[in-house]
Amino acid sequence: MTDYQPTPEDRFSFGLWTVGWRGHNTFGEAVRPALDPVEAVGKLSELGAYGITFHDDDLIPPGSGDTERDAVIKRFTKALGESGLAVPMVTTNLFSHPVFRDGGFTSNSRDVRRYALRKVMRNIDLAAELGARTYVCWGGMDGAEFEAGKNDAAALDRLREAFDILCDYVRSQGYGLRFAIEPKPNEPRGDVLLPTIGHALAFINELEHPEMVGLNPEVGHEQMAGLSFTHGVAQALWHGKLFHIDLNGQRGIKYDQDLRFGAGDLRDAFFLVNLLESHGYDGPRHFDFKTPRTEDMSGVWEAARNCMRNYLILKAKAEAFRADPEVREAMEAARVFELERPTLEPGESVADLRAETIDLDEVGRRGYHFERLDQIALEYLMGVR
Amino acid sequence: MTDYQPTPEDRFSFGLWTVGWRGHNTFGEAVRPALDPVEAVGKLSELGAYGITFHDDDLIPPGSGDTERDAVIKRFTKALGESGLAVPMVTTNLFSHPVFRDGGFTSNSRDVRRYALRKVMRNIDLAAELGARTYVCWGGMDGAEFEAGKNDAAALDRLREAFDILCDYVRSQGYGLRFAIEPKPNEPRGDVLLPTIGHALAFINELEHPEMVGLNPEVGHEQMAGLSFTHGVAQALWHGKLFHIDLNGQRGIKYDQDLRFGAGDLRDAFFLVNLLESHGYDGPRHFDFKTPRTEDMSGVWEAARNCMRNYLILKAKAEAFRADPEVREAMEAARVFELERPTLEPGESVADLRAETIDLDEVGRRGYHFERLDQIALEYLMGVR
Amino acid sequence: MTDYQPTPEDRFSFGLWTVGWRGHNTFGEAVRPALDPVEAVGKLSELGAYGITFHDDDLIPPGSGDTERDAVIKRFTKALGESGLAVPMVTTNLFSHPVFRDGGFTSNSRDVRRYALRKVMRNIDLAAELGARTYVCWGGMDGAEFEAGKNDAAALDRLREAFDILCDYVRSQGYGLRFAIEPKPNEPRGDVLLPTIGHALAFINELEHPEMVGLNPEVGHEQMAGLSFTHGVAQALWHGKLFHIDLNGQRGIKYDQDLRFGAGDLRDAFFLVNLLESHGYDGPRHFDFKTPRTEDMSGVWEAARNCMRNYLILKAKAEAFRADPEVREAMEAARVFELERPTLEPGESVADLRAETIDLDEVGRRGYHFERLDQIALEYLMGVR
Amino acid sequence: MTDYQPTPEDRFSFGLWTVGWRGHNTFGEAVRPALDPVEAVGKLSELGAYGITFHDDDLIPPGSGDTERDAVIKRFTKALGESGLAVPMVTTNLFSHPVFRDGGFTSNSRDVRRYALRKVMRNIDLAAELGARTYVCWGGMDGAEFEAGKNDAAALDRLREAFDILCDYVRSQGYGLRFAIEPKPNEPRGDVLLPTIGHALAFINELEHPEMVGLNPEVGHEQMAGLSFTHGVAQALWHGKLFHIDLNGQRGIKYDQDLRFGAGDLRDAFFLVNLLESHGYDGPRHFDFKTPRTEDMSGVWEAARNCMRNYLILKAKAEAFRADPEVREAMEAARVFELERPTLEPGESVADLRAETIDLDEVGRRGYHFERLDQIALEYLMGVR
Repeated sequence: MTDYQPTPEDRFSFGLWTVGWRGHNTFGEAVRPALDPVEAVGKLSELGAYGITFHDDDLIPPGSGDTERDAVIKRFTKALGESGLAVPMVTTNLFSHPVFRDGGFTSNSRDVRRYALRKVMRNIDLAAELGARTYVCWGGMDGAEFEAGKNDAAALDRLREAFDILCDYVRSQGYGLRFAIEPKPNEPRGDVLLPTIGHALAFINELEHPEMVGLNPEVGHEQMAGLSFTHGVAQALWHGKLFHIDLNGQRGIKYDQDLRFGAGDLRDAFFLVNLLESHGYDGPRHFDFKTPRTEDMSGVWEAARNCMRNYLILKAKAEAFRADPEVREAMEAARVFELERPTLEPGESVADLRAETIDLDEVGRRGYHFERLDQIALEYLMGVR
Repeated sequence: MTDYQPTPEDRFSFGLWTVGWRGHNTFGEAVRPALDPVEAVGKLSELGAYGITFHDDDLIPPGSGDTERDAVIKRFTKALGESGLAVPMVTTNLFSHPVFRDGGFTSNSRDVRRYALRKVMRNIDLAAELGARTYVCWGGMDGAEFEAGKNDAAALDRLREAFDILCDYVRSQGYGLRFAIEPKPNEPRGDVLLPTIGHALAFINELEHPEMVGLNPEVGHEQMAGLSFTHGVAQALWHGKLFHIDLNGQRGIKYDQDLRFGAGDLRDAFFLVNLLESHGYDGPRHFDFKTPRTEDMSGVWEAARNCMRNYLILKAKAEAFRADPEVREAMEAARVFELERPTLEPGESVADLRAETIDLDEVGRRGYHFERLDQIALEYLMGVR
Repeated sequence: MTDYQPTPEDRFSFGLWTVGWRGHNTFGEAVRPALDPVEAVGKLSELGAYGITFHDDDLIPPGSGDTERDAVIKRFTKALGESGLAVPMVTTNLFSHPVFRDGGFTSNSRDVRRYALRKVMRNIDLAAELGARTYVCWGGMDGAEFEAGKNDAAALDRLREAFDILCDYVRSQGYGLRFAIEPKPNEPRGDVLLPTIGHALAFINELEHPEMVGLNPEVGHEQMAGLSFTHGVAQALWHGKLFHIDLNGQRGIKYDQDLRFGAGDLRDAFFLVNLLESHGYDGPRHFDFKTPRTEDMSGVWEAARNCMRNYLILKAKAEAFRADPEVREAMEAARVFELERPTLEPGESVADLRAETIDLDEVGRRGYHFERLDQIALEYLMGVR
Repeated sequence: MTDYQPTPEDRFSFGLWTVGWRGHNTFGEAVRPALDPVEAVGKLSELGAYGITFHDDDLIPPGSGDTERDAVIKRFTKALGESGLAVPMVTTNLFSHPVFRDGGFTSNSRDVRRYALRKVMRNIDLAAELGARTYVCWGGMDGAEFEAGKNDAAALDRLREAFDILCDYVRSQGYGLRFAIEPKPNEPRGDVLLPTIGHALAFINELEHPEMVGLNPEVGHEQMAGLSFTHGVAQALWHGKLFHIDLNGQRGIKYDQDLRFGAGDLRDAFFLVNLLESHGYDGPRHFDFKTPRTEDMSGVWEAARNCMRNYLILKAKAEAFRADPEVREAMEAARVFELERPTLEPGESVADLRAETIDLDEVGRRGYHFERLDQIALEYLMGVR
């Protein structure tokens, strides 16, 4: 472990679009060549990854005929077989083509909504064929710049309809797939529907099959709303809804940076890994990053490698932190474990509680010693303990 | 209506703490004298308000004995009776006293959690006595600056426990009260539990009596996370959970400003009022603002008056906007109503949908004409239509 | 004026890239056809604009030979002549091509820096030929994602060198051009050099010819840092450095939205227009917006038309506001004019001032009546006065 | 060094108000007892600090008569002498008292402006007497919530007047003091005058004695505007204006957190220390933090101790990073040093540069290898190298 060399047991996966991102954005042209998916498979396998994921259009050039499509899939499947790489998750591109300019499942255009469903179903068939267990839905184009043009209630109705249809479809086909919604507050739309982990969790409760739908939260997406990713993931776990996770880096509230994991808010990355590992999350650790345009392909592979390496470094630190008796003692002093104790014990009545008194002055003077505990954590993170 | 003069039928209410805020903050001392609650009742009634709300400690000086408490309540009730002002909502102060320095329902200290429940229950009794229908819970101190000191899962367990206990209590007493959670992303804690409308909506689903608990979203709190308040309220309405609302003003992502309603994001205020009025929301329009420290008491009453006035101005504009045939036509052109139509009609099968094709190039060229619609809205807002 | 119909006297200008933006971004493909610059000239002139501006590459397809370039310029110049449209400002594209992936004037690559200077100089010659008075420099690619790769002091040295060389060049050629730096906090780079109005103003003081260099601040760019654009422009004016201005709309701290003017923070737009008009700013009112991808070309022209219309609406409101005697009276009550009076009058000594006393309690009770004044402004903005 | 134990040679200083902050804010009461300044001196000295700083009102209770004031100063000076602690910086409280509700140097009230100047001058005399070299001015109350009430140009005039008067005063008295302006974007005012490092640097250039005025930037203040503190400090150093520095921690764009140094953005803290140490900054490393209200006094001292400890840890890491030959090699590969080379060498003419050509395709393919360099830095920060 001391060399932080990943193996498939670590369950690291990468989006084909992450290593394949060519660097185009609003202000700049592509800076890197197209990446052959088969090359991506080989390289990721070599680096120690466990899986590869993709949007339909990442793998199959849009506009391909059936024959071309089949050939692409066959060639890709062969590469997977040779490399041992799994396809744990698949997703759909409902954003690049102009047809999705007002959204996919919630476009004001009904024909577009129907096309979006069709596009997803076709790719679900492929996902099932490739053995994927999770199907991610990012509705980044489902939103609005201007309020009057989008009826939110109708949009939520249509979104619910879409998930109900898709869940039915998966059940009818007997696929072993679950859906994972990926929230985002904005970009490319001014305001995106289901902007945070919370909004998506709430939405899922309105579905016909809420048990089939969970979350795929992304580090940077919550941080773009100034929210703590670690606290958000903790709530998703509490609801039993962390079906998948997108790891990357963001430096504050600004455009979606998609830096490599570890290169954003390092503190939050440490506490996130600590949470995932201590909680026993067993899904893929999926990296969704975009290497800055300054880099050529060597920088892309450097970033991919370091996403995994940083996770393993933080995992080792978090394990040491949790195992340290001084930490346990500091957590006792901070009354961390006291929060696990019910406020009202079994057998106690409200009347008991109401009859009680406390010395407000004395309890008001009580300190919680979080400074000390946080400093120990920080020193583990900095490697000086 | 043209004079925008509020009447109780408009259902405007104010927190006692809003007009009574003396102006202390981290950097500055109080700048205004204490306000007698009875004076607040008289003045708000005179201005045309419908109701007044309060935290226990706003009305009853902390540390009061039973006799003093009874006298305060009696005097306040008398003033209410004379003025005709209602008490539609009551809430608890679980933040000012040092005892709550690590939170109320989720303090690491079990004795504090018990005290918090006791404090709430006592005030619920008063709320019921005064005829309140909504009991607001703002857990601003329930959060953390440092991750290691707070076990989120345990905190959520304790929060659920608290609401389950309180719902049971209200049911056992036969009170006609519902709870409304007020989310906030941060301040006074670094990260607050249930940071947004979405997180609170999700949490409610885990309660024993979810039907008894809804939301009290606040304009500025969502905007402190860079989120659209209007879209958030729309989702809360879609879930049937807009139990109460806090109206005020915020200018971007920064400290909690609590400006008067209308003085923050004016566009969002217009679309919010349009949403509330067109949806038929019939709860109080509650103002939760803090007049800047530059103002003396005349500025406080000026602000209170203008909160209501701005609401009525925006309401009139929104009604005219909705009634304009050109708006309806522009909404047609923007396909706004098409979103209400199910993507799959009753009777249609997934197979029908999958057999369909569309001309991607043609549909991709389709424009949505949101610019025109938004400009019409903006011109209504600016009063040039 | 009541029809808010622009004329060239209003000095409205548009970037060729604004009406010509095809809608590509990180997540989506172009949604609109290429726009012929000559068509843009005709259409903008028809709408009542005064001028058109461009980056070299907007007008002349990159890679054009001299003959092709000359032909393009000739055709464009002819269209300008026929339409009467001026070219008040010109700028350079130092961002789209991969060669600028680490910046233009401050790329770590010296050959790129030299190419950037060459590209600018060639376009300066054209700008002078077309009679432009302002040359804008937006260094959006001059920045960094990662600190270790960019020596800030060296970058500032190189940026100073670039401006010193360009000022010398303009002087040597006898061109009547001034430079205007356009600050931006981030995007496309993680952190951009000279992130705000303030940083750029400070930088200019280190140049050999500071009098030749001023600012081109953009509404959304300052708001992306949560800063008030109006206060920022006021400081730029105070320094005598508002050489040009980019008007558009932004809704909070997020990616660069470039909405039409008026569609972002409406309050700030009102106070900005009030500032520009009352100050006597006589430069172009330049719109730098990107019509959302939902729109087809009709939406683009709608947006262009409404940028001007909104400016004129706000201008009329601001004029009425300033002319209202009640406003003057409210400003007196708010002691606004007292701030113009020197704190120490001519002839007064520090000793005089130190000998003075004030009654802290009494002065501490003084209210400033800003609430009332702001409400009047807001009512002008909403058109209810 | 391996024990990271501070000594006075490290030049660490603390504000009396930092360790003395009792924890009051808008939502909560004080949670900690008042701290005797003499106790603070003793404790900070014991912890290894070099200096202590204060606002006049931190040391001398407001309203003290001359006799009381003299006694306080005498007692404090005695403690300083015994402890060996220096007073490298002094500042003024122009914010707590209601009299400053609209600002100090730029209050609309002329009598307040005069009182502010008086208050500063009196404290400057004390600062000089105690041997301070820097006088910090934080104008947090100088700003506005509402635009119409504050004439920015007049405010900047008055601010310039204030600094000109104060510089004259210091010169006339022969004091060895320089002023350091501390910018902040907002809080307690909605928008603060001179919101960032850049705005303050620009302002200084308009003074009669710009050489006497520099900056005291604070980590969290720049980060509250989403700006990189390290890049901002680098620009201040480039202008020769880093006269003093306030170190603390902030976690994103929100209210002013003032966490202990190291507890905010850890990456930025590392690069900041690297910058200060490699640049040879020799002023005090001054900590301006507020220990969270959860802590009792033991947590305050824990935080104070760890501010210094974290600085020393990061300093050791930064030194090792800079000394590593692999880092130098990676910087070469990233062309970092190439940016130090002038774009135009002495002797080269613009004509030379214009005659040159580059192969755009080839140069466009060039990668900058920042990913690798950043990963090495990150590994130093995490202590795994």
